[in-house]
Amino acid sequence: MHVVVNAATSVDGKLSTRERRQLRISGPEDFARVDRLRAESDAVMVGVGTVLADDPRIGLDDPEPIAEREARGEPPKPARVVADSRARTPPEARILDGSAPTYLLVSDAAPDDRLAQLDRETVRIVRAGGERVDLRAGLAAVEADGIDRLIVEGGGELLFSLFSLGLVDELSLYVGSLVIGGRDAPTLADGEGFLSDSEFPDLELREVERIGDGVLLRYGVE
Amino acid sequence: MHVVVNAATSVDGKLSTRERRQLRISGPEDFARVDRLRAESDAVMVGVGTVLADDPRIGLDDPEPIAEREARGEPPKPARVVADSRARTPPEARILDGSAPTYLLVSDAAPDDRLAQLDRETVRIVRAGGERVDLRAGLAAVEADGIDRLIVEGGGELLFSLFSLGLVDELSLYVGSLVIGGRDAPTLADGEGFLSDSEFPDLELREVERIGDGVLLRYGVE
Repeated sequence: MHVVVNAATSVDGKLSTRERRQLRISGPEDFARVDRLRAESDAVMVGVGTVLADDPRIGLDDPEPIAEREARGEPPKPARVVADSRARTPPEARILDGSAPTYLLVSDAAPDDRLAQLDRETVRIVRAGGERVDLRAGLAAVEADGIDRLIVEGGGELLFSLFSLGLVDELSLYVGSLVIGGRDAPTLADGEGFLSDSEFPDLELREVERIGDGVLLRYGVE
Repeated sequence: MHVVVNAATSVDGKLSTRERRQLRISGPEDFARVDRLRAESDAVMVGVGTVLADDPRIGLDDPEPIAEREARGEPPKPARVVADSRARTPPEARILDGSAPTYLLVSDAAPDDRLAQLDRETVRIVRAGGERVDLRAGLAAVEADGIDRLIVEGGGELLFSLFSLGLVDELSLYVGSLVIGGRDAPTLADGEGFLSDSEFPDLELREVERIGDGVLLRYGVE
């Protein structure tokens, strides 16, 4: 599986304010790029924190890429994947709208009654791990289902976990020209954090492109 | 006074690990740039958190820029400024080594016994503000002393305060090609954080330059 992290932050690395209010960090040119990236992917992944904060739909609405995908023999829209150890995704969440399949990666700590509420034709529940979802095993199960190209859009807890497991192949980071600030605001990589040179994921800067008012940095992960 | 923030972060906006361990985020090419920037400044500022964590000296050792400064009729080395509300700078801190004057910006909350320990010929104590130092008044006093070009090198609490007071004119940000991670690791702008579009400092991206393995982003602050 090829995993691309795609995110937009302020110059100080924040994904949103400390109130987790969703922001337009990039502009129309970058939105078009993100749409193309999604159109070329088999699935788009987020953490449950992002689902609870933003209720994203992660759709693909433009008829042209949908027609192109169908011409290639692919499903019209990319699937969605949620890392959701305790199955906290609300049953009415937009990511479960049925417009494309949604994989919920849960752990053994997910209560049965929550799972029962989420059981429907377009939802595929993947159980892996004890207290927290085993992302490596969860993604392997998703890959076995034909998902080869995965885009991960946040949040910072999920991204840190993926980096620490060595599961990220590329990072596309749009740095918007603003300061958000806040010691409690979510950043591109939260979690416990790495502590030493031997732990830091090493990136290779492949491309620098000004887009709109900001800059897109593309990295490979070594 | 012209205030330039100069800092290096990981791609996720971190200045250091959550243990505040100092890191080499940039490389030799960027160190040379920082030395030039310091050589062209009247003073270099840090917050007391940075003094306590890293004990920086903020020197200028290369004889060439020192000679150039003297030829221009300037002091051989830039002064140092510490935002230090409660006068927590240790008397033995390297920033007080006497190789250049050091301004300590303190508030009324700074205990007299601490101030007495810091009283020496090369230390200039500027008292402004009640509980926390009034940075605007403190910097005005420093400016009245002939400091026109100020570089601020961190940390994230001081930088957030300066951005929120509208005291920053430029930002030079070196983004190193690594992930540090950590929800508790210091970032470029910590503090309370901004919450809305009307509060976010608006930056203008002026220059993008690859240096070493990373990228230098230069912004004007509007």
